[in-house]
This record gives sequence, structure tokens and C-alpha cells, in this order.
Amino acid sequence: MSEDPMNAFVPGPRAAIKGAETGPLGGLTFAVKDLIDVAGFPTGGGNPDWERAHPIPTRHAWIVERLLSQAASAIGKTHTDEVSLGILGENPFSGTPLNPAAPDRVPGGSSSGSASVVAGGICDFALGTDTGGSVRVPASFCGLFGIRPTHGAVDFTGVLAQAPEADTIGWFARDAETFGRVAQAVFGAPLPTSLPNRLIVAADGFAFADPAVAAALTPLVDRLATLIGHRQDRILAPQGLSVWQQAQRQLQTSAAWRTFQPWIDAYNPRFAFAVARNLTLGSMVTDAERLRATLMREEARARLRMLLPPDTILCLPTTPFPAPKRGLSVSDLALPRERISALTCLGGLAGHPQVNLPGATVDGAPVGLSIVGPKGSDLTLAAVARAFAA
Amino acid sequence: MSEDPMNAFVPGPRAAIKGAETGPLGGLTFAVKDLIDVAGFPTGGGNPDWERAHPIPTRHAWIVERLLSQAASAIGKTHTDEVSLGILGENPFSGTPLNPAAPDRVPGGSSSGSASVVAGGICDFALGTDTGGSVRVPASFCGLFGIRPTHGAVDFTGVLAQAPEADTIGWFARDAETFGRVAQAVFGAPLPTSLPNRLIVAADGFAFADPAVAAALTPLVDRLATLIGHRQDRILAPQGLSVWQQAQRQLQTSAAWRTFQPWIDAYNPRFAFAVARNLTLGSMVTDAERLRATLMREEARARLRMLLPPDTILCLPTTPFPAPKRGLSVSDLALPRERISALTCLGGLAGHPQVNLPGATVDGAPVGLSIVGPKGSDLTLAAVARAFAA
Repeated sequence: MSEDPMNAFVPGPRAAIKGAETGPLGGLTFAVKDLIDVAGFPTGGGNPDWERAHPIPTRHAWIVERLLSQAASAIGKTHTDEVSLGILGENPFSGTPLNPAAPDRVPGGSSSGSASVVAGGICDFALGTDTGGSVRVPASFCGLFGIRPTHGAVDFTGVLAQAPEADTIGWFARDAETFGRVAQAVFGAPLPTSLPNRLIVAADGFAFADPAVAAALTPLVDRLATLIGHRQDRILAPQGLSVWQQAQRQLQTSAAWRTFQPWIDAYNPRFAFAVARNLTLGSMVTDAERLRATLMREEARARLRMLLPPDTILCLPTTPFPAPKRGLSVSDLALPRERISALTCLGGLAGHPQVNLPGATVDGAPVGLSIVGPKGSDLTLAAVARAFAA
Repeated sequence: MSEDPMNAFVPGPRAAIKGAETGPLGGLTFAVKDLIDVAGFPTGGGNPDWERAHPIPTRHAWIVERLLSQAASAIGKTHTDEVSLGILGENPFSGTPLNPAAPDRVPGGSSSGSASVVAGGICDFALGTDTGGSVRVPASFCGLFGIRPTHGAVDFTGVLAQAPEADTIGWFARDAETFGRVAQAVFGAPLPTSLPNRLIVAADGFAFADPAVAAALTPLVDRLATLIGHRQDRILAPQGLSVWQQAQRQLQTSAAWRTFQPWIDAYNPRFAFAVARNLTLGSMVTDAERLRATLMREEARARLRMLLPPDTILCLPTTPFPAPKRGLSVSDLALPRERISALTCLGGLAGHPQVNLPGATVDGAPVGLSIVGPKGSDLTLAAVARAFAA
């Protein structure tokens, strides 16, 4: 227990891999979500029947190889919601990692263990994945910098896929400096020196969040507006966040079903009920519903292209509330889950990069402000985060 | 392992309870399906999250108390499909008990462990429960005598309920003599000396079974006809066995959902995917569908009353095929599951007593012949079984 005070590492031998002797990430340690291959260690995927059904990888995932080559050292693999299907971080097989910023609350998921160990100071940064919010939500709940990069910008090789049209690899850090160093190492380019000069505030996003969250984030928005200038309040989703959310949900759950169906069919794996139910509902999405949702995704992409010309960023609350308490019931969590994804759905729908900025609390628990930029503006967002935290 | 060669007993201290000094079941040992309370031992229900959520019972179930008072001794509790939701006996939490009669095949379920230990000669008889076929199916697959009693005839106190309008407690034995002794002890009356004098052969049931099964059962039907006399071939389900099966399935899955919903909501328990999917589908049965299925159940009851006046029994194949191989995929098992319940659905729908008679094999694996009598004719069926085996 003293070796894993966060209950965040997968049991067994730690996947500790020393990085290159010298490099831009020299001296930094990182943890790896157990969805991402580390050669010689099983990729458990947060589900005992996944681990049993899959061979131990013989190669590192691209992202792990990249970080090691830049002189960062891996210290272990971290718990995840079952095969990344979850947003809260409660996994009945591995237990719920601690949220060090709010110990009676969930850490958020599915990159739960990675957020937990960074927030707990166990390592400098940690890798997660984000399909529907799996980096952004735990970053908000644990008070961390966290990025969902531009879809496709970070090589997904060696990572357990869920919904390939929305899957991304991201990371967490406690401070903007480390966060930016990792971004530079991943993308192989320095942070830009000039910042965007136009800030869109997503009025519908702030209205959708709990009023206490919107109020707590106001000073952060003001600071951002001072930094960027030219603030404009706009509607993000003219059709409604709930309508976008439904499209994203249909696309993501049906894609997850297609991804996992062969494994489910062959192994009849064990899942927490709520996870199996979502997979079952994903199996029931019709072709007509999927086509309609795909059309709406096209429109959401057009909307974000329109709102985000070069040198513009947009901000919205990352989550509509801070982390829920641990151990709530399935029905108590049903609407909160949907509300969270109403704010995060734009990531999977449109594929733009998004960064969570920490710094606000409600009832003592962290809640974050997200910034979203044009596609490919990942390093710019990291530069904004660094300037914001300065 | 040598202490549990059938992989049929729940781990931990064996629930061994000595029966009364003397009585009608003196010298007999029995096992108890882990859905049935034995004081001082957890009722695990085949699911780790059920066991965790429920206190250790302080009283024996009525049936256990009854058997102990008749001088039988309990030797342990046996594996079951998760909270009795399964018909094949494959449980990913506890493993699959051995089918000693066909080791490469499933034992049948949900009373899998009880059938396994009786077939393996570990004890004289064993308790199961039968809602949709959970005694009859493993009896057929393991080559045992097994009874689903008249609904309501055996007190259900202290037993984990699934669908109260269909739940029953039954038992397995290798020989008809022991089988009948248990019946006498449970019902507190001797087996009748006179047998029924009219035999209905369910023509649609035999046509629905695999031709090899119908052929293998023919000598058993002939022996039964010789024993009973006055054989008539009749259609059991004029609407169709598949139509009855659908009604029973809607009633049973929606009842199971109502039974387990509070637990599922509070604990988000782990299930094998196929179990969670069935519960999810059960949650989606509409009131209109349930009303329609209830009306059909009334008609099925009327049909069985019409077919089964006093001194009449009906026979049909217990299962349409012998036990499937172990480890088949979810999709490979989908239709076989439905086919089995097309033959077993009359139990839950109409509530009549039904006894599996062993004695036939197909490809070396057992398959049983069922006899069904009027409500309350449980002891008569046991007498027929004894005469049949003589």
C-alpha cells in the first residue's frame, strides 16, 4: 500500500524503463495509462479478460518510444476505466485511484491512474488517452494541465483503440512548464513565441455548467482575456450541446461496439454492468442513426472551423461540475455522465486540440477551464497555458 | 484441486452441516446451490459483487432445514451461473464445473455445480433452482434425474429470487430411488402406488429437437408408453414453441431486471457481457409487451390444463440437443440458448411439475426425456421415474 498510495498503478512488476541518457526531457519521470503498450509488460486495458486475451507486447507504443528517446523515464502503468469506457475513474476490478485534490471524490477517467499519480506528485507527467473526454475530465477533476491533441497528430501505434475516428493520446502535468516541455518533445518543435489574439468565450458552455463553476472560472476567463485580447462571447453549438452530445454518443458507442465485438464474442468478458449496458446500447445504434450523426459531425466541424480561424482560441468549462463523490449509484451518475459529455463532445466530434487549465475550485474541489484552438495548434495551446500560468 | 475434482464447490470453508441423527434421508449427503441460504455461510449467487453486497445468512433456507431435519447431511455449496442468469453453466468468475458425463462439454446451468457433483458421485443428491430450465437443463446434459416442482409447492424462503412468478427449487439424483426418497421427504408424503394411465407425446417438442435426439429418445418414450399406456401424440403449443418462448423470455428477463435493479443500481456489479446484455434487454421490455406476454401465459396455462387432466402425463425432450462444447463464443451460443428455452419455457409459463429422465445419449453425451404432470403431481412424477428406472 505504501508503494502505491494513490491506488493508481497496475499490480505486478512495475513497468520502469529508463530513458535515453540525455535529451530534452532529461530528469523527468512519467507514468503510462494501461491502454498503451510498454514492451515486456501486459497491456491490461483495465479489464482482466482483456489482459488474458492479448499477448504481452514486444514493442513500445510510438508515444512511449518517443518519450524515452527524449530522455524521460517511465515508472509504471496506471489504472484505467475498463477498455477506456468510462469518464469517472471507478473500476470495480482495479479499484478507484485516489483524487489527491479531493480524496472523497472520483479522480475522473478513463485516464484515472495517470491523473492520480501526477496530482499526487508521484511523477512529473503521465500519458492518457482521450476519446470522449478521458484526459480532459480527470485533468479538470484533479486540477492538472491536460491535453487532448489534434486528432491524428500523435501516432496511435501500440495503443488500445476504442473509436478510431475520435481516439487521441494526451498527457497530464502539474505545471505548465513541464506540460509545455512534453508538448515540444512529442511534436518535435518549440512552443511558439507569439500567442493568439482573439478569444471566443463559449456562452452556451458557461450557461450549461453549474452556476458555481461558471462563477469560479470567471477570474480565469478574465485572465485569459487579458492575455489574448479581443474577447467575444459566442454560441458554440447552435443546435444545442445536448444535440451534439447525442451525435457523438451514437458515433462513439457504436464505434466502440464495432471495435470490441470480436473480443466480446469470443471471450464473453466481464464488465461492470454500466459498461456492458453502454456496449449493448452501442450495438443497437442503427445505420440510419449513425449516418445522421455523421452528418451532424460534419456540421460541428464546419462550426468549429468558422469559429476558430488562425490566431483564435475558444474557452469553455472543461466539466460542468467538479468531481462527483465516490461510490454513487448507477442511476445517480446517469445524468452527470451525459452532462459531462455535453461539454466534452466537441473533442470527438470536431477533432480540435483542447487543453485543460487548472486554477479554480468549487466546494474545495478543482474544476478546469478548457481552451480549444484550430487543428494543429497544439503547441500554441501549450504556449497559452505557459503564459497563463506565468 | 483434489478436494474439488469437479470444480463445483464454492471456495472457502465447506458448508458441511450434519443432519438429524435419524430420519427418512439418513445416510444421504447433499450439496446446495449457492443461491440457497446455509446459515453461517455467504450466499454468493455466483457473482462476487452479490456476495459482497449481502450479509451472511443466519438461518437456513426452508428447504435446507427440511432436508437436515430428515437426516440428510449437507457437504457444501456449489457454483451457479451469475445470480441464476444462465442455462449453460459457464461462469467466468468461478469457472465451469466439470460435466463428468461429457468432460469436453458444459454441465448446463444455472444449477451447474449441483448437477456436476451428483453426476461425479461426490454426494447422493443436490439442490438447484429452476426458473427457466436451471434444473432440467443440467439434468439433461449430465444424465441425471432432476425435478422442477409445481410452482409454489416448495417453500422458497431463504433462496435468492430471480423471477418470483417462475422461480422453483428442485434437486438432482443419479438414481430414481434416491430421487424419490428426497421427493417424499420434501413433500412429507409417500410416492403414490398407482401410476397415470394416459401419455401425451408432445409432437411439436420432438419435431423441434435435433432428429438425433428425437431418435435417441424413442426407446425411452416407448418404455414410458408401455408403462403408462394410452399414448397420444399431440401438439403442445399451437401458437408455436418459439412464440411461447418469446413470452416467457419477456416475462422472465423483465422480472429479473425488476428483481436485481436496486442491487445493480447501488453496486454497478460485474457480469459476463452476455448476462449484462440480457439484463439490459430485460430493462427494455415495455409494459405493453409484458401485458401481451402475460395474456399468452394465461393461454399456455389453459392449454396445459386441457392437455393434462388427472392421471395424464406429457413427455417431450428436455433439451433439443446434448450439452454444447465448452468455450463457444457468445454468438455461437445465441441460438442454442433460445432453442433450449423453447423446450423449457412451459415450466415458467405454466408452473407444472417436470422431471428429467436420463437414459439416452447422442454422440456419447447424455440427453434427457421430460415428463410433465398436472399441478401438484410431483410425487406421481417421482413414482413414474422410479417405475421407469426399475
